[in-house]
Amino acid sequence: MATDPDIVIIAASETDSNLYYTTRFLAPDPFMFLRVKGEKILVMSDLEVDRARATATVDTVLAYSDYEGRVKRREAAPPTTIDVVDLVLKERGVTQVLVPENFGFEHARRLQAKGYELSTKREPFFDERAIKTTEEVAAIEAAQRAVESAVHRVIDLLGAASVRGGLIVHEGEPVTSERIKKLINVALMEQDCVSQHTIIAGGLHACDPHHEGSGPLRAGEPIVMDIFPRHATTRYFADMSRTVLKGKASPEKKRLYDTVLAAQEEAIASVCDGADGQTIHARIMERFEQAGYKTGLTNGRMQGFFHGTGHGVGIDIHEAPRINKSGAPLKAGHVVTVEPGLYYPEIGGVRIEDMVLVEPGGCRNLTNFPKILEIE
Amino acid sequence: MATDPDIVIIAASETDSNLYYTTRFLAPDPFMFLRVKGEKILVMSDLEVDRARATATVDTVLAYSDYEGRVKRREAAPPTTIDVVDLVLKERGVTQVLVPENFGFEHARRLQAKGYELSTKREPFFDERAIKTTEEVAAIEAAQRAVESAVHRVIDLLGAASVRGGLIVHEGEPVTSERIKKLINVALMEQDCVSQHTIIAGGLHACDPHHEGSGPLRAGEPIVMDIFPRHATTRYFADMSRTVLKGKASPEKKRLYDTVLAAQEEAIASVCDGADGQTIHARIMERFEQAGYKTGLTNGRMQGFFHGTGHGVGIDIHEAPRINKSGAPLKAGHVVTVEPGLYYPEIGGVRIEDMVLVEPGGCRNLTNFPKILEIE
Repeated sequence: MATDPDIVIIAASETDSNLYYTTRFLAPDPFMFLRVKGEKILVMSDLEVDRARATATVDTVLAYSDYEGRVKRREAAPPTTIDVVDLVLKERGVTQVLVPENFGFEHARRLQAKGYELSTKREPFFDERAIKTTEEVAAIEAAQRAVESAVHRVIDLLGAASVRGGLIVHEGEPVTSERIKKLINVALMEQDCVSQHTIIAGGLHACDPHHEGSGPLRAGEPIVMDIFPRHATTRYFADMSRTVLKGKASPEKKRLYDTVLAAQEEAIASVCDGADGQTIHARIMERFEQAGYKTGLTNGRMQGFFHGTGHGVGIDIHEAPRINKSGAPLKAGHVVTVEPGLYYPEIGGVRIEDMVLVEPGGCRNLTNFPKILEIE
Repeated sequence: MATDPDIVIIAASETDSNLYYTTRFLAPDPFMFLRVKGEKILVMSDLEVDRARATATVDTVLAYSDYEGRVKRREAAPPTTIDVVDLVLKERGVTQVLVPENFGFEHARRLQAKGYELSTKREPFFDERAIKTTEEVAAIEAAQRAVESAVHRVIDLLGAASVRGGLIVHEGEPVTSERIKKLINVALMEQDCVSQHTIIAGGLHACDPHHEGSGPLRAGEPIVMDIFPRHATTRYFADMSRTVLKGKASPEKKRLYDTVLAAQEEAIASVCDGADGQTIHARIMERFEQAGYKTGLTNGRMQGFFHGTGHGVGIDIHEAPRINKSGAPLKAGHVVTVEPGLYYPEIGGVRIEDMVLVEPGGCRNLTNFPKILEIE
């Protein structure tokens, strides 16, 4: 049986999800993780060493200051992070290490200069990260329940709102993207979920899939709502999009919506263990083309369907696997979004997104929220 | 006059502050930035190209798909990010590039394999990032005003609370760390500030400077509150700590608090353009020792003052410069925290932190919040 490769990661787990995944220790500043002959080791500053010993899912926590002191006694220059890593590796007889693709170039160069042979591995660095445990699925679902409760508040507000001069008005004030975003973000924070970059985009803004939206929202125009908070304690994300319209939709807007919805339903029905992400994505493209919705540049601007169909969700909002033009086979335990969209400045933008858990023979939809275009 | 080096950064600006700093373009997925002969260039996916053209502070936005297509016509294998970067660099005759220290090792290796000579630069990668403009200081102050308004709510709650069986009780329920954190985080979200890892730590938790705190808070024990949100739109952080105690403090707790406060006041008085961060930190260590507060391991646990005195604040919560044992000279325009602390499990933890703007001959305190230990 092949030995697992020895690993070094030096990063801040606040932003490096592989490091958080393997240590379950969250810190804003870089720290060192090693896996040597299967033993998981952290090297931590005095400030973090007690907390790491109490909570990190590792075998050994070493004090950086101990090793720093020992390096100091040998050499003249002040010891660097890599001097400390070097000492820990030397003690254990390691000469070859596997590092993530995003391992810092400067650290890598210094390790190489000390004679280590470095190799990398394509993401996912930890294969098992893409396959969610029952606990991880529960964490994602908990965040999703919070999203749904927040979006219900928006639907209630839009339902209670009136229309004046084409604008949506509630409690005497125009309803803006900013107002809806704050309503959602505050509702999510009340449920311990941190929501950033919430998209509430109407009109032309909705036709740029990453535009967060701003200003007054108009009746009769599709409003794309895309909400993807991270639970503050579990660190897992949820992700949902809905498109709504205050009042009655014109026939062409309704047809745009129905086309996206039907494509999403077909895609969800085709998700199962062994299904191919690339095929699912290609099928949606094909459906849209057949329905007359072309994708491409018009007047220098992308129109149609020009983003992926879905992505894995976990400790990162976008992680393996992808359902897109370079997508891979889906496996039981993957949690992925299914989110086709169509965007035409002359009609509007529509995106509908659920999160599903891939299972043998099908999938379980983790999203529990109605898909209704018109709010009257 | 020396030419500025040509630069390549490939990262997600959501987590890479240098990239956000130089482009002011926020995206959750990696994109490519180049600076060639002074021209700032982005290479963006179809999904982001319009938004980048509209908002990024760069000279040129290239479409990734254009370059990808041209690479495709030349080679058999599907083009990689580095193939695209290579084509952009070749067109411009670049062979040497400067990358940040955290540049991804895999990308670096592929660039090297294509013959590029890579060098790095110690942080700050962009020197000017440490010197805040008037606009940046205003953004930091705006976030700080939000912090203060949130913490005033906590002071009001603790003032209105009563004590039962040693526990702090308000509206019939024990006051917990979690309850105070939520009060603060929701209040900050209402002001468009995203607050994570807020520390509300009493008793033993307060003696571990990075413990976020949990469970019921007790009267008569110092409670460390450390709040450091990021403004959602400007992306700038603020950072403040206060230590409070419900009821009357024992003489030894009061002395601990007064010692930290006096050290902080002296340190703030010594901050000015040209002052040395290392000296300021050493002076606090010395004061604490002289007052009888030793720093070191006791029963395997760090006690005393075992973190830095301060750090720069900006797009990152911790950035250059540092006021610590390896600290550097302070310059006019730096925004730094001054946050000495003392931590003894048998007495409690105390930390007091303001943010100041370094000026010629002194500093301007950006924090406007009282320092009062006892809340009766």
